[in-house]
Amino acid sequence: MIILIWIFVRVNLASASELESQRYPAFQDVNVMMLIGFGFLMTFIRSYAWSALAWTFLINAFVSQYYIILSPFWERVLRHGFSEFMIHIDIMFLIRCSYSVASILIAFGGLIGRIGPKEILIISTVHMIGYTLNEELVYFKIKMIDAGGSSVIHTYGAYFGLTTCLILSNKIKPTTNPKTSYIANIFGFIGTLFLWLYWPSFNFGITAMNTFEQNLIVVNTFLSLTGSVLGTYILSATAFGRGLEMESILNATLAGGVVIGAPCSMIYRPGVSILIGFTTGMISTACFHKLTPKLLQLIGLYDTCGIHNLHGIPGLLGGLWSAVIVAFYNSGYDVEVGAKFFTGQFLNIEPRFMHQGALQIAGTVTSLGLAIVFGIIAGLITRLFYK
Amino acid sequence: MIILIWIFVRVNLASASELESQRYPAFQDVNVMMLIGFGFLMTFIRSYAWSALAWTFLINAFVSQYYIILSPFWERVLRHGFSEFMIHIDIMFLIRCSYSVASILIAFGGLIGRIGPKEILIISTVHMIGYTLNEELVYFKIKMIDAGGSSVIHTYGAYFGLTTCLILSNKIKPTTNPKTSYIANIFGFIGTLFLWLYWPSFNFGITAMNTFEQNLIVVNTFLSLTGSVLGTYILSATAFGRGLEMESILNATLAGGVVIGAPCSMIYRPGVSILIGFTTGMISTACFHKLTPKLLQLIGLYDTCGIHNLHGIPGLLGGLWSAVIVAFYNSGYDVEVGAKFFTGQFLNIEPRFMHQGALQIAGTVTSLGLAIVFGIIAGLITRLFYK
Amino acid sequence: MIILIWIFVRVNLASASELESQRYPAFQDVNVMMLIGFGFLMTFIRSYAWSALAWTFLINAFVSQYYIILSPFWERVLRHGFSEFMIHIDIMFLIRCSYSVASILIAFGGLIGRIGPKEILIISTVHMIGYTLNEELVYFKIKMIDAGGSSVIHTYGAYFGLTTCLILSNKIKPTTNPKTSYIANIFGFIGTLFLWLYWPSFNFGITAMNTFEQNLIVVNTFLSLTGSVLGTYILSATAFGRGLEMESILNATLAGGVVIGAPCSMIYRPGVSILIGFTTGMISTACFHKLTPKLLQLIGLYDTCGIHNLHGIPGLLGGLWSAVIVAFYNSGYDVEVGAKFFTGQFLNIEPRFMHQGALQIAGTVTSLGLAIVFGIIAGLITRLFYK
Repeated sequence: MIILIWIFVRVNLASASELESQRYPAFQDVNVMMLIGFGFLMTFIRSYAWSALAWTFLINAFVSQYYIILSPFWERVLRHGFSEFMIHIDIMFLIRCSYSVASILIAFGGLIGRIGPKEILIISTVHMIGYTLNEELVYFKIKMIDAGGSSVIHTYGAYFGLTTCLILSNKIKPTTNPKTSYIANIFGFIGTLFLWLYWPSFNFGITAMNTFEQNLIVVNTFLSLTGSVLGTYILSATAFGRGLEMESILNATLAGGVVIGAPCSMIYRPGVSILIGFTTGMISTACFHKLTPKLLQLIGLYDTCGIHNLHGIPGLLGGLWSAVIVAFYNSGYDVEVGAKFFTGQFLNIEPRFMHQGALQIAGTVTSLGLAIVFGIIAGLITRLFYK
Repeated sequence: MIILIWIFVRVNLASASELESQRYPAFQDVNVMMLIGFGFLMTFIRSYAWSALAWTFLINAFVSQYYIILSPFWERVLRHGFSEFMIHIDIMFLIRCSYSVASILIAFGGLIGRIGPKEILIISTVHMIGYTLNEELVYFKIKMIDAGGSSVIHTYGAYFGLTTCLILSNKIKPTTNPKTSYIANIFGFIGTLFLWLYWPSFNFGITAMNTFEQNLIVVNTFLSLTGSVLGTYILSATAFGRGLEMESILNATLAGGVVIGAPCSMIYRPGVSILIGFTTGMISTACFHKLTPKLLQLIGLYDTCGIHNLHGIPGLLGGLWSAVIVAFYNSGYDVEVGAKFFTGQFLNIEPRFMHQGALQIAGTVTSLGLAIVFGIIAGLITRLFYK
Repeated sequence: MIILIWIFVRVNLASASELESQRYPAFQDVNVMMLIGFGFLMTFIRSYAWSALAWTFLINAFVSQYYIILSPFWERVLRHGFSEFMIHIDIMFLIRCSYSVASILIAFGGLIGRIGPKEILIISTVHMIGYTLNEELVYFKIKMIDAGGSSVIHTYGAYFGLTTCLILSNKIKPTTNPKTSYIANIFGFIGTLFLWLYWPSFNFGITAMNTFEQNLIVVNTFLSLTGSVLGTYILSATAFGRGLEMESILNATLAGGVVIGAPCSMIYRPGVSILIGFTTGMISTACFHKLTPKLLQLIGLYDTCGIHNLHGIPGLLGGLWSAVIVAFYNSGYDVEVGAKFFTGQFLNIEPRFMHQGALQIAGTVTSLGLAIVFGIIAGLITRLFYK
């Protein structure tokens, strides 16, 4: 890896544009989400706390280096050709590295506590090959609009992890039901809060090209997140008769950030964002209570951190919402936002809204499909090497 | 709430100015102060740790939505009239949302551990009606200069909470003296440190209109905070013969940030900031040791987290200091700073310094008065519904 | 101190340049590294957790005030003369304050748990006199390029602390081997991760004068840090037969940030950064396992947190690497980066690369020498007052 990077990679010498130079704080926020956010979120299972942190730290380090090689590789294969060999990296590129780390950490959340360093290495390698391919296809071939990666990051990561989990299910069984504790939950809260707080940075990180878009994405993400907090607390307190359950509060409150990833740059009525966040918070909470035990019983899917409920289903819903919203732009105001967004956006798409709705669906399905394909590959290879 | 926001609220489509677009990191800092800062500060009482975090998270979510409706409501009633119905929100508006969250969390600090979700809902609603009214009166009618909200946020929040507390005192008695523990104190330190670190962002968040003002506010706030750390440690170590007490170190060290809120944009001699922080740190520490037990004994005021010592008294002192400093501007250098500040400032006040001193006092008294009035209302309504 | 600052210090009234005004987020990151980073890193020794946090907090407060007086003092003695008496401070100046705090906290890491407030006061005072003198000599007389302070901050801090430690070694003996615990290690991880995450801000904080340099420093620092994580994990897991040791993972993973401090603004092949980080991570891990026990046995050097392994040796290596890299600039691309860097840099050095290599060595040796001299002074004075 060092040799490959030595030969092919250079720091971008061109001075960044004004807006890109202000992107550094967002880069830091996204990184805090990876290590503090994902790391501590997974500490809520008491006996895995240390290993959750230690593996998160390691994965972050070597997956970043994979991405530096793999993403430009697919870019050259599928778009630019190999005339330009050298890879030039800068802060914006490093933000994209961190997004790929997010995706593998989501997958890892389903497997944590049951796999060791050798399995982590195999699964991460396969994951990254698929992730960078899917990113290239969805963003540049299909031209889906997915600022916060509902499909590219969350749907892909979650269903990749779940597929791998299912294939390995009769090999890696949980020995006991992982226990939590009062202190472990407080540590978990550190993770949840930093994820919740910095999610707007995650969603506008590489997309926002002007202050108009930044405003739009930050406001919608923030309000969707407050919506999912309310949805989670209300359903959790009323429906299941067990009071406020820690697992839901630590996880489902974040579903509003996942679901708003794709539509966050298209919504101009903040009430829509709150509604989307609110309903998704409720759906996610209900899944934690009802779906997870049912899936374990029916198909033996053991999902350690509940990634299906936090990333899988909200990720799919995010793709769906984005299709519905963009397809049914109607009032003058709506069209104005859409046009402003499309012209300011790096993809330079024509404002044909129904057509764009179909592309949103295509991107979501592609992410889901590739996740399952590469999940099967990762699972089968791991089985081979599993002692 | 969703319906109201759906109908009346839109994202601001105008591109933000250069300076406003750089305000996003400050928005994140202020949010970290709310959830990580206030949330973890209150975990130092061991048995309330989880509920402190869970309620802080919930309050942050729904109070933000209240503010989006209530603040523009008063703005239309008292200033602009209802000709412009639509509410346009952006990142700067969300920072003001977070300030209102700060104020309710301060009030909550006095009541924590003794009220449930129903009471939280009632008290927050009354609090927010008064907070948004007071904000409109103090900033736009009285034209007080209060960048960091010594009066508007801290004085209002603290005395509102204390009044409510007093009215409910024979209903909600603490069952036992809340205990702390070694680990709970370390968690508490996370809260204290993040509040301490990001306080400069809090103070310049919506005020600073140019880099001159930003520099002024950051330097003064930082130095005042270092002053209150020194004041707290020195008094705590020498005066009360019990060594370094954790409660003082976790709380009184922050008094320098509260007190400098109003004068932080007027001081050009950093020595003044250190002096203000140093004395306020000492006063706050002394109050934790002497005043809190006396108030409990005399009038039965049980103040769980000591908000009177950290927010109430330093908030009042902040208003007072700002009046004294602005009124007695005298040297050429002083006047230059004052003039530069007043002309660059969004209120566009004439540089008549004695007159402005009187306005600072008026703003402080108004905040205190409204806090007590709305605190009584909140307390009485809660009594009605208290089982 | 308050009196001195009152008389001599003013807030800088000139509006900051565009780039400086964007430096505020980096200022916050550096401060988080001081209090959350260093504070929590040192909590991994269970019984010192609270005192580590409390003393870090205090040191941060009063050392900042020392720096405001001492740094301009040496500046006037050695460069500008006393014609300009007034000291003007702004956010950029406060970042330099935080760097001096970093240096004393590094020294403190070697002594923690064995000295009280009186000793901390004496040692900090001597440290700061030497630190500000060394800073002035290395940056402005020798004109070493040391963006992240490999020599000025890390080498000086570590060897000052170790020298003091050695002189006091028969006075302040550790009573027992400091124990760690599962929870203490998780708290320690908070410190490690925030240090790791915000290190790029630390390295470009006062140096980067344009977006080109910022990109260069951020990319190199980030990659060096990922390299040291990999180096640490690999050596730790394979070489010593004790699995992943917490002490190494909490400390040696950061060595990549220390070592890249001096060369981070000169490297344009990111592979070089990864290599430097990777090897230094391994060296640091090996030192934790082999060198620390040997030094304790041979010369009685008891180094509580292992500052020799994390700051001392990587700091020296950083100075060395920077000399080698700058001296052997050869290809056209290299020279382009060097020239771009030298002309954009505040020191305005001519692009004579071999000569600059010698200056890098001179700066490193000066830092080491002054550290030992002032360490001896601090140690001897402390012995006098030690009861």
